[in-house]
Amino acid sequence: MSAEAVATYATRLGDDALILAQRLGEWIASAPQLEEDVALGNIGLDLLGQARTLLAYAGEVEGAGRSEDDLAFLRDERDFLNLQIVERPNEDFGVTIARQLVFSTYQVALYSRLQHSTDDTIAGVAAKAVKEVDYHRDHAAQWTLRLGDGTDESHARMQRGLGRIWPYVEEMFVTDDLECLLAGDGVAVEVVGLREEFDAYVDAVLAEATIERPTATWTAGGGRRGVHTEAFGYLLAEMQHLHRSHPGASW
Amino acid sequence: MSAEAVATYATRLGDDALILAQRLGEWIASAPQLEEDVALGNIGLDLLGQARTLLAYAGEVEGAGRSEDDLAFLRDERDFLNLQIVERPNEDFGVTIARQLVFSTYQVALYSRLQHSTDDTIAGVAAKAVKEVDYHRDHAAQWTLRLGDGTDESHARMQRGLGRIWPYVEEMFVTDDLECLLAGDGVAVEVVGLREEFDAYVDAVLAEATIERPTATWTAGGGRRGVHTEAFGYLLAEMQHLHRSHPGASW
Repeated sequence: MSAEAVATYATRLGDDALILAQRLGEWIASAPQLEEDVALGNIGLDLLGQARTLLAYAGEVEGAGRSEDDLAFLRDERDFLNLQIVERPNEDFGVTIARQLVFSTYQVALYSRLQHSTDDTIAGVAAKAVKEVDYHRDHAAQWTLRLGDGTDESHARMQRGLGRIWPYVEEMFVTDDLECLLAGDGVAVEVVGLREEFDAYVDAVLAEATIERPTATWTAGGGRRGVHTEAFGYLLAEMQHLHRSHPGASW
Repeated sequence: MSAEAVATYATRLGDDALILAQRLGEWIASAPQLEEDVALGNIGLDLLGQARTLLAYAGEVEGAGRSEDDLAFLRDERDFLNLQIVERPNEDFGVTIARQLVFSTYQVALYSRLQHSTDDTIAGVAAKAVKEVDYHRDHAAQWTLRLGDGTDESHARMQRGLGRIWPYVEEMFVTDDLECLLAGDGVAVEVVGLREEFDAYVDAVLAEATIERPTATWTAGGGRRGVHTEAFGYLLAEMQHLHRSHPGASW
């Protein structure tokens, strides 16, 4: 399999982590509780660590001398390969928790399989990351239960949050030639099993939280090919502003 | 000594930590290097932890049933008692590092003494915090050396950053009746020794970094009495927006 395909795959996973870390950073000292600020901040820093390793590996495999910082701060919007779910605005806490539930459940299913990747680096990243995302999933599940099974107001907000996020679920399980090829070589994983595990876990949490599984009326798509939402442009501008303002500065 | 004085003192220190944590959170995924995002994010989370404990204690001593979350999210601007140095905007990385150097050096001097406070809770907070802020100071000192002793550009930015921060230094060492009273009882500390330790440490770092100690042409003041800058209003609006939008919501 080609080095380019592996670099693309690592970039996809790294970008997911990088962009969600940026969104979670927006919560620091802004969550409904200080305790929760710390929790979301720590989750964001875990993701940032995953992003660093994956993007460093993408740069190495690519062989063009780009560092993880070059990849994070000097690429254009169309070159980011993250899923659209991670780039959408936080909105309120209910939406944020819904995204955490959905995305971390996807990551647990993904990384638990990628631990056995034939690519040693990806296997190593996955083995470390799976412990982290397992905690993230547990955190989101606990909040989903607490909100869903709480007051009328918290229940309504959790249900609404999940409804806002649900159109982004499908994109996580769309595959393409590149991932099929890599799965054939044992580098990436089959999407079919991921979806089953995702459905089983999420459905169980929602049932206990008395939250209905939403039906999406539209579906996001295109993130893996560099197609992004308007909100992503603003996020990127903020994220890259400092670095790009002083391209020659050696900090 | 009065419970009110102790509550005010704990609030002052807690607010310093809370507001600086908010500013550092703005760096997540926006620093010049991903590695640095993680470092600044971790420093912010340390400060947030300090803020939680100090504000929880302030609420307890005050005896009016306010939690640390009430104090963080439901107070008005004039009731925040943080120093102005922590509220000023980040600007660029040079300014941020200059603030970290100056403020963490102050915190090390302060908390190393407060470990011996006659107030057991404050002594306990300080004993834990001193280890954290000692690392923060070391981090800032390393960056000051790296930038000061780096390229012409990085040297110029570090020098400029320190110049931007210097007007806020004096306020850290201004005392008032309340702190004099508490110092007399062994709860708080004398400011005189703090200033000497601060000058010795900062001057040594600046000399090695070939950065000149600035001369301030004006001096910030009033933070401890609830007087704040225009930038603080925006920071507070962002920090409190979620909580205040849904005052009745039980998350």
